[in-house]
Amino acid sequence: MQVATDLIWEKVTMQTPTTQVKIHQTDESGPGLTDRFSQVRRHTERLIHGLSPEDCQIQSMPDASPAKWHLAHTTWFWETFLLPELDPDYQPFDPQYNFLFNSYYEAVGPRHARPQRGMITRPSLNDVLQYRAHVTNAVLERLSGGQWSDRAGDILALGIAHEEQHQELLVTDIKHALFQNPFGPAYDPAKEDLVAEASEWVSLDGGLVDIGHEGQGFAFDNEGPQHKCWLEPYQIASGLVTNGDVIDFIRDGGYRAASLWLSEGWGRISGEGRQAPFYWHRGEDGDWHHFTLAGFQKVNPKGVARHLDFFEASAIAEWKSARLPTEFEWEHAARHAPDRLSGLFGAVWQWTRSDYAPYPRYQPQPGAIGEYNGKFMSNQYVLRGSSVATSPGHERLSYRNFFPSHAQWQFTGLRLAQDA
Amino acid sequence: MQVATDLIWEKVTMQTPTTQVKIHQTDESGPGLTDRFSQVRRHTERLIHGLSPEDCQIQSMPDASPAKWHLAHTTWFWETFLLPELDPDYQPFDPQYNFLFNSYYEAVGPRHARPQRGMITRPSLNDVLQYRAHVTNAVLERLSGGQWSDRAGDILALGIAHEEQHQELLVTDIKHALFQNPFGPAYDPAKEDLVAEASEWVSLDGGLVDIGHEGQGFAFDNEGPQHKCWLEPYQIASGLVTNGDVIDFIRDGGYRAASLWLSEGWGRISGEGRQAPFYWHRGEDGDWHHFTLAGFQKVNPKGVARHLDFFEASAIAEWKSARLPTEFEWEHAARHAPDRLSGLFGAVWQWTRSDYAPYPRYQPQPGAIGEYNGKFMSNQYVLRGSSVATSPGHERLSYRNFFPSHAQWQFTGLRLAQDA
Amino acid sequence: MQVATDLIWEKVTMQTPTTQVKIHQTDESGPGLTDRFSQVRRHTERLIHGLSPEDCQIQSMPDASPAKWHLAHTTWFWETFLLPELDPDYQPFDPQYNFLFNSYYEAVGPRHARPQRGMITRPSLNDVLQYRAHVTNAVLERLSGGQWSDRAGDILALGIAHEEQHQELLVTDIKHALFQNPFGPAYDPAKEDLVAEASEWVSLDGGLVDIGHEGQGFAFDNEGPQHKCWLEPYQIASGLVTNGDVIDFIRDGGYRAASLWLSEGWGRISGEGRQAPFYWHRGEDGDWHHFTLAGFQKVNPKGVARHLDFFEASAIAEWKSARLPTEFEWEHAARHAPDRLSGLFGAVWQWTRSDYAPYPRYQPQPGAIGEYNGKFMSNQYVLRGSSVATSPGHERLSYRNFFPSHAQWQFTGLRLAQDA
Amino acid sequence: MQVATDLIWEKVTMQTPTTQVKIHQTDESGPGLTDRFSQVRRHTERLIHGLSPEDCQIQSMPDASPAKWHLAHTTWFWETFLLPELDPDYQPFDPQYNFLFNSYYEAVGPRHARPQRGMITRPSLNDVLQYRAHVTNAVLERLSGGQWSDRAGDILALGIAHEEQHQELLVTDIKHALFQNPFGPAYDPAKEDLVAEASEWVSLDGGLVDIGHEGQGFAFDNEGPQHKCWLEPYQIASGLVTNGDVIDFIRDGGYRAASLWLSEGWGRISGEGRQAPFYWHRGEDGDWHHFTLAGFQKVNPKGVARHLDFFEASAIAEWKSARLPTEFEWEHAARHAPDRLSGLFGAVWQWTRSDYAPYPRYQPQPGAIGEYNGKFMSNQYVLRGSSVATSPGHERLSYRNFFPSHAQWQFTGLRLAQDA
Repeated sequence: MQVATDLIWEKVTMQTPTTQVKIHQTDESGPGLTDRFSQVRRHTERLIHGLSPEDCQIQSMPDASPAKWHLAHTTWFWETFLLPELDPDYQPFDPQYNFLFNSYYEAVGPRHARPQRGMITRPSLNDVLQYRAHVTNAVLERLSGGQWSDRAGDILALGIAHEEQHQELLVTDIKHALFQNPFGPAYDPAKEDLVAEASEWVSLDGGLVDIGHEGQGFAFDNEGPQHKCWLEPYQIASGLVTNGDVIDFIRDGGYRAASLWLSEGWGRISGEGRQAPFYWHRGEDGDWHHFTLAGFQKVNPKGVARHLDFFEASAIAEWKSARLPTEFEWEHAARHAPDRLSGLFGAVWQWTRSDYAPYPRYQPQPGAIGEYNGKFMSNQYVLRGSSVATSPGHERLSYRNFFPSHAQWQFTGLRLAQDA
Repeated sequence: MQVATDLIWEKVTMQTPTTQVKIHQTDESGPGLTDRFSQVRRHTERLIHGLSPEDCQIQSMPDASPAKWHLAHTTWFWETFLLPELDPDYQPFDPQYNFLFNSYYEAVGPRHARPQRGMITRPSLNDVLQYRAHVTNAVLERLSGGQWSDRAGDILALGIAHEEQHQELLVTDIKHALFQNPFGPAYDPAKEDLVAEASEWVSLDGGLVDIGHEGQGFAFDNEGPQHKCWLEPYQIASGLVTNGDVIDFIRDGGYRAASLWLSEGWGRISGEGRQAPFYWHRGEDGDWHHFTLAGFQKVNPKGVARHLDFFEASAIAEWKSARLPTEFEWEHAARHAPDRLSGLFGAVWQWTRSDYAPYPRYQPQPGAIGEYNGKFMSNQYVLRGSSVATSPGHERLSYRNFFPSHAQWQFTGLRLAQDA
Repeated sequence: MQVATDLIWEKVTMQTPTTQVKIHQTDESGPGLTDRFSQVRRHTERLIHGLSPEDCQIQSMPDASPAKWHLAHTTWFWETFLLPELDPDYQPFDPQYNFLFNSYYEAVGPRHARPQRGMITRPSLNDVLQYRAHVTNAVLERLSGGQWSDRAGDILALGIAHEEQHQELLVTDIKHALFQNPFGPAYDPAKEDLVAEASEWVSLDGGLVDIGHEGQGFAFDNEGPQHKCWLEPYQIASGLVTNGDVIDFIRDGGYRAASLWLSEGWGRISGEGRQAPFYWHRGEDGDWHHFTLAGFQKVNPKGVARHLDFFEASAIAEWKSARLPTEFEWEHAARHAPDRLSGLFGAVWQWTRSDYAPYPRYQPQPGAIGEYNGKFMSNQYVLRGSSVATSPGHERLSYRNFFPSHAQWQFTGLRLAQDA
Repeated sequence: MQVATDLIWEKVTMQTPTTQVKIHQTDESGPGLTDRFSQVRRHTERLIHGLSPEDCQIQSMPDASPAKWHLAHTTWFWETFLLPELDPDYQPFDPQYNFLFNSYYEAVGPRHARPQRGMITRPSLNDVLQYRAHVTNAVLERLSGGQWSDRAGDILALGIAHEEQHQELLVTDIKHALFQNPFGPAYDPAKEDLVAEASEWVSLDGGLVDIGHEGQGFAFDNEGPQHKCWLEPYQIASGLVTNGDVIDFIRDGGYRAASLWLSEGWGRISGEGRQAPFYWHRGEDGDWHHFTLAGFQKVNPKGVARHLDFFEASAIAEWKSARLPTEFEWEHAARHAPDRLSGLFGAVWQWTRSDYAPYPRYQPQPGAIGEYNGKFMSNQYVLRGSSVATSPGHERLSYRNFFPSHAQWQFTGLRLAQDA
């Protein structure tokens, strides 16, 4: 089956959007998608292993969502967009859920206010797990014949990507939620083990290069169209900035040196009295400790630096007499020198100097789901790569993640660049 | 056993305190207290019947606390103040709980920030119920001999009153929590059935009267010392203001008539655009509906008006060409004309015109628990009587409840008064 | 001429009202009032001697008003309430001024938002001084015949008291405005010279006493009706609390001792990190300095303590093992032991423990100006006496000033009391 | 005299910076600079003609500054940066002024908080005008010999550009200040006369083009270095969007159509209830009126639309099925098709789709004034052209103005673009 280039758009979160999606094209056959659907559904449920109903209930800040909400919203997506396409007679599991678990689709009707998501105690976690099972089965039954429309295939591919995005958010949101507890309970001891490799400068010539997604696989619409871009010669670091770098930055007075910071960042950190990255604190032993998915731990200087916001990333680069790469430099280097770069994927999302803007000739899509096309492209910066919390198989060289400059709760770090 | 006049103080909530407590005196014998201890513990647990772990987790506003917190804090009180008195070797169930479930006692050490109570997902509801059982049994074992110090007896009487206060708060806080759900789930269909009796004016002569608690039973310290007070002749309404009165007030433009309101109240309601009491909304049928413990219901005009704040109570009295009684008028009438007054107890707390101030010769207490003596006596108003959510046997003629003038989530209404 | 008991009400400020006024009665003859009118008008203008147009323009916080606004608003009062009574054909100087200089009279039409008063650059100071001259002359011309109605006489007496109240506010507001300048310019070197006399306890028997205004002179309506009040025996300090007391309080850790403070006050000062009274700072010499009407000065330990809010006054009393008097104790002592008390008038307004509430049988007035009757009687505390900034002849034994508990910019201090 | 490429940086405003400046190069001779210095000083003073001391005092919002502050700050700049270079023995006019009139140069010492600029009543406007005269004369005396260092020449050229920037801000800030007055006084009847020419699409081929300043004249450092940029073929509107377009947009429901807006913009305008551009209101005649430098006027449909923020500009473009140009498209078109475009300069600054980011190989400068190099390059968008309030001779093809996306008080509009 061919998934046609088109039609469908999504933004994972409303206030701090992560990614807009559009199916361009896929060469995947039907059965493959069915299996991947089953896998992605099971994987989401595996992520709440060890969490209590209470853990899954709370919303620790407006930018985050309860785990229970992620479980329900991803289910609502299938029920709202795919099931009516597979079966016009499908009846919703519970009509109230459309109000409660719509994220931001105005065309689908009104919805519950985002900052109040933690206040919805009913349905309970058990109810939501039954809702999941019901919808998963309803989809699998209707896919079992192996025949579906191109549009259903598009939605299937998109829905898988959509649920994978929520898997990462579920992990970052649960980390933030557990951090509210002064005793710092662990989520998953194995999850956040990040050691960086040594770094050296890698030189690239630049010139007139091609940027963006082109080809057969699935990609979100913001990754295209592919287009030309002129790059000056530049150097990019082979490795990621480490916790040891951050400790040196702190020791060197980095959080007190106005000259290293963008003005807006300086206003923010000096107003807060910030002295270290989010999740860090000075232990009674005088060393730096931080909260991780495995609970409170001593900061490992060899670990990859994470939970840096755009301003911290910029200040650390400035202190290193370097700068952030543009997203075009990052992608070009990742395409042409992947063997000489470490940590491209699977450790941290890497801040770039590029604001999140439409690529040339990017066109808004018609239709109801396309309502929010391009709508999040203001006052955010692009991050490239993927993180320890990204679901397996979700990453791409052309992937554009994006967050506001002050976001700290994602697994965000940096890779240095400089003019050649 | 005699509970001596003395020593022990409590304030039920930190931000919007309800009552400071001091044991004055009691004529209750030991065995009676043991039984009452068992009863009050069981009653608290009965109040969460039908609630899920999620329902008990959330804190719907800073003034409210999660049901789970009420369950744990009342237990912490026994563990912290009574058990060490009964048994110097008693070891706390979990040392972390002292940090998590201390309400505001600075002398007992630091504590978790009140507005973050809803963020504590661990211990779970089940853990807290085990904590309760452990502490209840620990107390009962140590009381079983039938011998204890006067001071332990004081704490026992006080702790019972303390837990009763939290029972009422648990109910009002759960009502507010369930109201966050747009579908308005019911808590207890039988709980909030309030029909008012007809009202007429009752005349009292006033003069130099005695106010405040004196005698053998338990009372909080703010109810004394008994003292003289001069009252002019006055009239007080035999019945409570009804929902029908409120509907008439709305229909008559009461929420748009600046002249009826205290200036501060007018600023508040016009700033909010408030058109009706909290929990009320206009239904699609054009009638007034409100959220109750039994879910959304049509407002019954014969029902007792509730969830009025001090400003609404004052404005309604003004519109009726009447006024609020002082707390002294209320108490004097309740003592001298109880047969001619309905709804004194068990329907709504009744706002008075009196600010919450110390009675003459009220004296701060020495000692650690007395740290907060008198501390909540500013910018709050006294309410008299008791409400549908007040635990049986908790009310007294001299009881002084108090809340800030803008509090809406308690069962608060009014009884009119006027000059004779 | 007899000014009848009646009709007219005023509140000096909208957000932080100072006093409601009602003419009860006066035995003053017409010519006397004419002279007093001339004097009060000249005195207001004398108060801006030495101030620039810029000084008179700014509003340094929402609670304060620009000096220019005080000059204009007091003039608007005469133009709006007195001139139409004296001359039905009187035409306003400028019709726009009614919108700009109405303080809060809703019946007189809409008005400019209070916090934006500092944004009105036109009319200029010169324009306002011309407006003043025009209205003063218009009044004097119409009074020159020596004949006017009782109602006009009432308004005349009230308008004089009204303008005197604004004179005090002009001084306190200018002090606050000049304080915004980091170099602390002086307003009037002679104005703020306050040395306290030594204090000792004065004993009073209390009993059933009379409180409130009765008699021939002018008084605001909130000072009556005269009524009975029962007082327990008490002691009151003959002198005022001094700066030296405050210095000792600070040195003794008063601003860090939660146990001395009302809970609301503790939340406020610990949230702010407050370490000393408003206008105080630690000089480079290690001593306390404060901003005064004569500029920055070293704090004189013998000076009367001022710019204390209600919470500071309460905490200092607590630290002294004393308490604030009630307004009834203050008035009773001032009536019966004036020779044994110093600083009753002319130094600082003295906080009392009494909330600002209506006296028994206080009745709202009919009519347009009476719209705001009693409207400010919530969440404020009564201050007694008068201050260094009070206009001569404005004070009375029955005078009830009132401010919210956090107000700091008025000349506010305290006199201690204790149970006998 | 040659002004060398180098060294000196400036940002006009602290919170909402407008432009960083760096002298690249100038071919202007000394005498020309002396004359231009005199002219720019006189022009600033001409701008306050007709304004009162009060008008020049107030700060109507944190983003704006008082006119008096602009007069003083531009003088402080000369005194701080140029006079010590011309004469090492120069003594400041008043040492306090360095604290009061430093905008944001941390290396020059502490400074007065920006939002409190309107609270500085002393020095008065007259004092500031004397300060201006003193410094102007001091500079002219020292320039009269016709000899000065290259660095002094750099500062001279930069200071002229700096004072020109403040001239525009003075006009926009005064417009906002006068708007606070409900009666809308006029500033200058002749100032804001903006009629747009008809618009048609102009096609450009794009390709690999050169962007940025190169050559002999003065430019700010953010305009360079010149660099290559790839552009797809595109079309740009020959004329500016008009008030008539905005009226049609409003009539067509543009302010209620979520689908036209960037998500952040929609959140902002729906939260505010915004229905029209800033300064617009519906008159009693049902037509649109707006506040202009000539006072309130009926909106002329043929006038150039102004006071649009970035979100409004984007939404209007979307509604027109077009988009904003990038700053590269704007500059390329302005360089290669100036005869086919109207309104490039002198009407409104034109929003572009480009965030304010450093050009490739842009390098921070060493030295004290360079402290803030690049510091404002986050979360702002570039505007091109110049406005009716821009000082004559200040504009350039390579000029990059920048403001946050929500800024409304500048003369900001748009020119449409679309893909070819």
